[in-house]
Amino acid sequence: MTITKEEFVKCVDHSLLKPFLTQQEVIDGIAYARELGCASVCLSPHNVRLAQEMLAGTAVKVCTVIGFPSGAHTTFTKVTEAKDAYANGAEELDMVINVGALKAGEYQKVQQEIEAVVQATPAIVKVILEDAYLTKEEIKKGSELVEAAGAAFVKTSTGFAPTGSTVEDLQIMRAAVSDKVKVKAAGGLNSLQDCLDSIAAGAERIGISKTKEILSEF
Amino acid sequence: MTITKEEFVKCVDHSLLKPFLTQQEVIDGIAYARELGCASVCLSPHNVRLAQEMLAGTAVKVCTVIGFPSGAHTTFTKVTEAKDAYANGAEELDMVINVGALKAGEYQKVQQEIEAVVQATPAIVKVILEDAYLTKEEIKKGSELVEAAGAAFVKTSTGFAPTGSTVEDLQIMRAAVSDKVKVKAAGGLNSLQDCLDSIAAGAERIGISKTKEILSEF
Repeated sequence: MTITKEEFVKCVDHSLLKPFLTQQEVIDGIAYARELGCASVCLSPHNVRLAQEMLAGTAVKVCTVIGFPSGAHTTFTKVTEAKDAYANGAEELDMVINVGALKAGEYQKVQQEIEAVVQATPAIVKVILEDAYLTKEEIKKGSELVEAAGAAFVKTSTGFAPTGSTVEDLQIMRAAVSDKVKVKAAGGLNSLQDCLDSIAAGAERIGISKTKEILSEF
Repeated sequence: MTITKEEFVKCVDHSLLKPFLTQQEVIDGIAYARELGCASVCLSPHNVRLAQEMLAGTAVKVCTVIGFPSGAHTTFTKVTEAKDAYANGAEELDMVINVGALKAGEYQKVQQEIEAVVQATPAIVKVILEDAYLTKEEIKKGSELVEAAGAAFVKTSTGFAPTGSTVEDLQIMRAAVSDKVKVKAAGGLNSLQDCLDSIAAGAERIGISKTKEILSEF
């Protein structure tokens, strides 16, 4: 697989989601992603306004997370958080599903919650299944629910579960949805090879925090 | 240290916070805690209403989590989630601070956010510092901010960080606050000895998910 550094950077959601990051570290991270020209900066809701100010007029999108990372919030809270994030300048929202509901087979509940977040704002919604907690069948079913709910992306992981994105899971997700839905790999991508394998498996976006180290491998 | 099983149970917040729990597993967990007579059941926001129905008329409190586990939500979202949880029947709210703000020395921001959640409802608020990410000095300062903000408890951990509650950290927290503020130990308490050590270090509440296994050690 051949991909230039420039093409690669356009797939990267530069992730600044560690809860212990200081504002200065977040500022530095946004500036780095802006200079690189990443697809987006993916940061915590309380940093959205800062990112919006720093990225205004650039092609780098402001991405934040909704119901993150547990997904165990109420639908009301997820929708409220989504609207607030959009009002603060977020253009992309990476939401976590109700994992327990998917595991219990409460498919309507899972789909309706995704729909509620998708419909809450005009932002692009990426739906995190948190594959670490799911069987292969649940990953397939979850992906189908994401498409049925009208979301733009299905995403593997938060980075907070015991394991992150795997090629096998990405392939299941890619096969479960039509071309209308994109796939994002995130969590545990520590090398350029991890990222290239993910892209080869169908990921159109890569969520990474070690962007500098990974790019140095080019 | 001598404590009876009955006294011990009254210190336990039976934790049902794993994101992958199905509704049936949560129902079973609530029933178990109700039978035991724990201090509370601590569960995800989307399960609060269920717990309220199952625990009505008992002494077991409904406890949920706010801005959990990252603490990286906006203050607006934390306050909204707290009000919603209280309206759904939560009597105790375990909130996570803005960890990055504490690490950056933005003490006023940390304190004001805690105050906003404390004042949002009449519920008891336990404030999680997430000690794993903090220096000893930050644990001390964070505890002082919790007391200044008027919260009832300071709590060690979410259970989602790399490490959980330690006796050393509990001692720092206990020493940093006056008798008006209680301390809760949670995260990584896997044995009766862990719990007894935490109580000896000043914890008045213990958040555990392995309650059955731990009680079997009595």
